[in-house]
Amino acid sequence: MIKAEQMSLNTATVKEQCNLRQAIDLCARYGIGGIAPWRENLKECGLDEANRMIQDQGLRVSGLCRGGMFTLENQLSQNILDNNKKAVDEAVAIHAECLVMVVGGLKPNSKDLIGSRKQMEEGLFKTLEYARTVKMPIAIEPLHPMYAADRACVNTLKYALDICDGMGAGIGIAVDVYHTWWDPELKSQIKRAGKERLLAFHLSDWLMETKHFLLDRGMMGDGVIDISRIRKWMESESFEMLNEVEIFSAENWWKRDPDEVIRICIERLAVC
Amino acid sequence: MIKAEQMSLNTATVKEQCNLRQAIDLCARYGIGGIAPWRENLKECGLDEANRMIQDQGLRVSGLCRGGMFTLENQLSQNILDNNKKAVDEAVAIHAECLVMVVGGLKPNSKDLIGSRKQMEEGLFKTLEYARTVKMPIAIEPLHPMYAADRACVNTLKYALDICDGMGAGIGIAVDVYHTWWDPELKSQIKRAGKERLLAFHLSDWLMETKHFLLDRGMMGDGVIDISRIRKWMESESFEMLNEVEIFSAENWWKRDPDEVIRICIERLAVC
Repeated sequence: MIKAEQMSLNTATVKEQCNLRQAIDLCARYGIGGIAPWRENLKECGLDEANRMIQDQGLRVSGLCRGGMFTLENQLSQNILDNNKKAVDEAVAIHAECLVMVVGGLKPNSKDLIGSRKQMEEGLFKTLEYARTVKMPIAIEPLHPMYAADRACVNTLKYALDICDGMGAGIGIAVDVYHTWWDPELKSQIKRAGKERLLAFHLSDWLMETKHFLLDRGMMGDGVIDISRIRKWMESESFEMLNEVEIFSAENWWKRDPDEVIRICIERLAVC
Repeated sequence: MIKAEQMSLNTATVKEQCNLRQAIDLCARYGIGGIAPWRENLKECGLDEANRMIQDQGLRVSGLCRGGMFTLENQLSQNILDNNKKAVDEAVAIHAECLVMVVGGLKPNSKDLIGSRKQMEEGLFKTLEYARTVKMPIAIEPLHPMYAADRACVNTLKYALDICDGMGAGIGIAVDVYHTWWDPELKSQIKRAGKERLLAFHLSDWLMETKHFLLDRGMMGDGVIDISRIRKWMESESFEMLNEVEIFSAENWWKRDPDEVIRICIERLAVC
């Protein structure tokens, strides 16, 4: 049974209802153990104030969303690299446990998946080299294959871990059940990853009748993912991170009272 | 350069415009080499008449769509098995080169992906045992992971080929670029499959801004899939099957004059 203190609130879950301060207040009100802000949240009030608010509540930061997008241009530009370096610095500033990487899809107007992956890996490695100097763990988040073209060309844990093994220390993976539940190698790749490379655990649910490619994720328990089974695989590797709830839901959860959303998150975590 | 005679028309591509007779007439008019009917098409005019029309035009049948759906009930019922046996018989009757299997997703009201896969594999094996007696090749079609819950719990070529290797002769795979283009193991798994297990090659395209989970496939060349690269991988294994065009497109191609659709298919095949 997962308790509120083992939950982290990804601010995307209450994106339409709460700014960072309000999200932190929600966490405080319900005894939630951590938060995962987006970089946009840090701009709202500035990095120092964001950090102060988070630390004042004693919240862990299960991850900063997000670095990556190494394929936004046809070359790995200084602009892309600088932006990722800045993301690392921001993650350090708010004491994040990792910087989550959504690596980018195909290069602009390109069908070259292999070349896009090559450019992405180069960007990832350069960012990792910097991140090591400031001791910020980099978490590759494999996204569901339906986002391969436009968001992330890393779509399986196996490929993510192949990248990690090629790069060495300081890099691991964020396991999001929404993106990975279908993978017949999910269990074996979690085992392969082991404690060292398991940096984050993201929760939502896959609705049987999903209506939108991006904004129709379900609340844990409302869909088809056997979350407790996947969590057991994580726990077998001594994973002790927070359970980060990240629900993009334009037509349902984003329209509800955020207190209700959080109460239901906590209820569901207790049983799945 | 692919010519019309190397194309097969999956009747789903003109589903809203043509019945089987009209689809066959289209193929004749444009010198298309093959057709891939759905079982519904065979019901329109009866199996014998369907076969006669197809053979009269000298069309190859690149596959019959489809058997499978082994998880529609919580047990592998006689009903499911009989229906698959019937699909095998129909494939034989129309001289199909394979029976395409869309294996089914999760069992009803279940989150048990592992158990669903087990039931699916059992059904597949029992159907294969029968299909061997009548020499009908069984083609597992791995579907995109976004269909894992509701249509097919085989979502990678690797898993499909693991199943094939476990079962032996008489079974292989249908490689559909729409379902598999994102897979970092696509090339290596095509190589692993080899000529013996490569039974069909299905074409459409992944649109960058896909609007519907099922009915928004693109015409070859309108999306992001590097089809010619994937075909080269197939050809490296001496794949000599037809290029089966299968485009589900409720808002675009299904609304067009079918002659226009076919002319554009042929134009695009010539360059991709």
